[in-house]
Amino acid sequence: MSLIVMKFGGSSVGDAERMKRVARRVVDRQVEGHQCVVVVSAMGDTTDELIDLSKQICDDTPPPREMDMLLTTGEQMSVALLSMAIQSLGQEAVSYTGWQAGMLTDTTHGKARITDIQPHRVLKAAEANKVVIVAGFQGMSEDGEITTLGRGGSDTTAVALAAAIEADLCEIYTDVDGIYSTDPRIVNCARKLNEISYDEMLELANLGAAVLHPRAVEYAKNYNVALVVRSSFTHNEGTYVKEEAVMEQGLVVRGIAFDKNVVRVSILGVPERPGQLAKVFTSLAQAQIDVDIIVQSGVLNGVADFSFSTTLTERERAVQVIEGIQDEIGFREVTSEDNLVKVSIVGAGMVSTPGVAAKMFEVISGLGASINMVSTSEIKMSCVIDLEYLQDVVKGLHTAYGLDTHEQVFVGGPADRR
Amino acid sequence: MSLIVMKFGGSSVGDAERMKRVARRVVDRQVEGHQCVVVVSAMGDTTDELIDLSKQICDDTPPPREMDMLLTTGEQMSVALLSMAIQSLGQEAVSYTGWQAGMLTDTTHGKARITDIQPHRVLKAAEANKVVIVAGFQGMSEDGEITTLGRGGSDTTAVALAAAIEADLCEIYTDVDGIYSTDPRIVNCARKLNEISYDEMLELANLGAAVLHPRAVEYAKNYNVALVVRSSFTHNEGTYVKEEAVMEQGLVVRGIAFDKNVVRVSILGVPERPGQLAKVFTSLAQAQIDVDIIVQSGVLNGVADFSFSTTLTERERAVQVIEGIQDEIGFREVTSEDNLVKVSIVGAGMVSTPGVAAKMFEVISGLGASINMVSTSEIKMSCVIDLEYLQDVVKGLHTAYGLDTHEQVFVGGPADRR
Repeated sequence: MSLIVMKFGGSSVGDAERMKRVARRVVDRQVEGHQCVVVVSAMGDTTDELIDLSKQICDDTPPPREMDMLLTTGEQMSVALLSMAIQSLGQEAVSYTGWQAGMLTDTTHGKARITDIQPHRVLKAAEANKVVIVAGFQGMSEDGEITTLGRGGSDTTAVALAAAIEADLCEIYTDVDGIYSTDPRIVNCARKLNEISYDEMLELANLGAAVLHPRAVEYAKNYNVALVVRSSFTHNEGTYVKEEAVMEQGLVVRGIAFDKNVVRVSILGVPERPGQLAKVFTSLAQAQIDVDIIVQSGVLNGVADFSFSTTLTERERAVQVIEGIQDEIGFREVTSEDNLVKVSIVGAGMVSTPGVAAKMFEVISGLGASINMVSTSEIKMSCVIDLEYLQDVVKGLHTAYGLDTHEQVFVGGPADRR
Repeated sequence: MSLIVMKFGGSSVGDAERMKRVARRVVDRQVEGHQCVVVVSAMGDTTDELIDLSKQICDDTPPPREMDMLLTTGEQMSVALLSMAIQSLGQEAVSYTGWQAGMLTDTTHGKARITDIQPHRVLKAAEANKVVIVAGFQGMSEDGEITTLGRGGSDTTAVALAAAIEADLCEIYTDVDGIYSTDPRIVNCARKLNEISYDEMLELANLGAAVLHPRAVEYAKNYNVALVVRSSFTHNEGTYVKEEAVMEQGLVVRGIAFDKNVVRVSILGVPERPGQLAKVFTSLAQAQIDVDIIVQSGVLNGVADFSFSTTLTERERAVQVIEGIQDEIGFREVTSEDNLVKVSIVGAGMVSTPGVAAKMFEVISGLGASINMVSTSEIKMSCVIDLEYLQDVVKGLHTAYGLDTHEQVFVGGPADRR
């Protein structure tokens, strides 16, 4: 008998009917001979409704501790209801909040990190053949405060719990049936991958693929948790995320991701002096603005241009921060530009295969698009291009890297992963 | 500086506006120089909505453990939101669930009893001049299970917590401005009492007065907690509930209560044999049916009639239980009768004042109503009469016992006391 963790996101348990369907699925799995531990998110819109309530109460940002107190009720409702649904099918079950399941975290309310898991209650209930249902996204700090793990938290709960109880498999049920070579809404012939490595998945998750949260993938990689992403609505085989060594290698590029949440900020006419770049990026870091790609143009007459990319939501703040240091830096002008998209290719074999980058440039320029920014790592390469070329470029890359015909990566799809 | 516990029921925090008004009131009290510990119920309809959700999931009665897990989210939401509201007024505050506040209970899910209170977190936060907000109605068993205290639970939380932290006063805020001599919707000249003894309040609460739960009153009496019932919507002085010895005695009868949730079940033609009554009431007790008044008629030709009163909700089950032992008992027929009301007079001085009972019978028969059942205790007397006479009888008693002109008891009003 194997021990498996099954994680269901908010849309999978969006209403009573869906909740019952999940219950049926869990019971089927248990009856097949698996011992199931289920991690579940808040039902559908519950979290948004709770946030709305807090906005009616507070004009300002609510205190994060109380926000955690409020939001964790969402998952507590889910686990109680799912336990009822499973028990009404005749299967013994028991629900636990994060603290009851022994999910210990630090005290960073709103985005706490797991520090330890003490799963004795979970294991004891599992030994008694009860389906154990654990509230995702939440934990408790050492001083007994209720915390939340932040975005993607339920995925992280599932993977971390799977590691702690040494589960044989962690199944992430979502509203797509696996990881695709790219977003099927952009490329018709996008294909579901049978397997993908942790590193590739991590890059894809970071590059905009919404199916799995990067933190969960990182956890899975670090603790070598066997992971599968599959649909909660079909019985199709999903995509296995595993160690590279045990994977069948095929394609150099396994997936194509894109991220429209990108803006380019340019700082023009910066007098060349030591430490200028450092000043800019220290100021941005202090304002907690994430900077992705950084480009510096050549120096002309002792004056240079910089540009960097960040998210659309940070656009205004980023420009304000730069303007705030104009006197100190002495630059001429700061501008920002949207209608961009970052397209990325990901593949563990890229580093050892010559010409991969050249082919990407070739495809993009062959379609008449200009490349605004570039960044690379061992297993991925990203180009920021004008948004209008998104579909053509992704299709072109999909074909050029042989993904149309082979089996394989990416994603998109409404996020179902808190 | 005094330490006070303030309890607000569900209708007092029914929506964001009311929540803010409660916050203002708490902050005013704190600024006046009191250290406030607030106990709060779930917002307005939250509990009913959660029960509805559980009914969509379960056809049968949901498992009580999971029901507690589900329902306790209601108060957790309330405390988080109230803490936000108070903090947005510039006052430091912190919210606690039942388990965080140290409310320990036994394991009887759905109606757990408090076994111990370990209020160190509450006291520590209070010492730091934070308003402490505690979720009513909930606790934790010794093995870490989340429990609820059942109906009236938030009142009980407030009173028990007040006892544990040795508060100077426990204020129960509700939607009426105190305890009335009787329901003002029945008798226009019903008056608010300035004070009432624990015992009188206990009888009134047991007899249908919805303002305070009997368990809370019992707790207050046992631990001698100074209690006041007052309106959350006005600043009127409420009604103090205190020890009899320290009360100004005035009227013999202080309040008139009534309860329409009553049905009379009659068992006709019971052959006289030893133990017949015992069999009947043992069977009812085993089915957990509460029996209130029991009447046995005289024996005629070796055959007797019994009748007892119970609640309308238990009617069918009670009849079924009796029918189930028909062969054993050998009675002729079981009948049940509704459209009844139990009217009660309550007063600590009744036992030492002759003629109180006689006057009640006089008033009732003078109005042409027949008395179906009677029961008495040291400080109360109840008569079950036909429902149609309710208003006339309560008015008649109110006048006959001098309550129209004097100050004083009862209640009614929509329950705001979970």
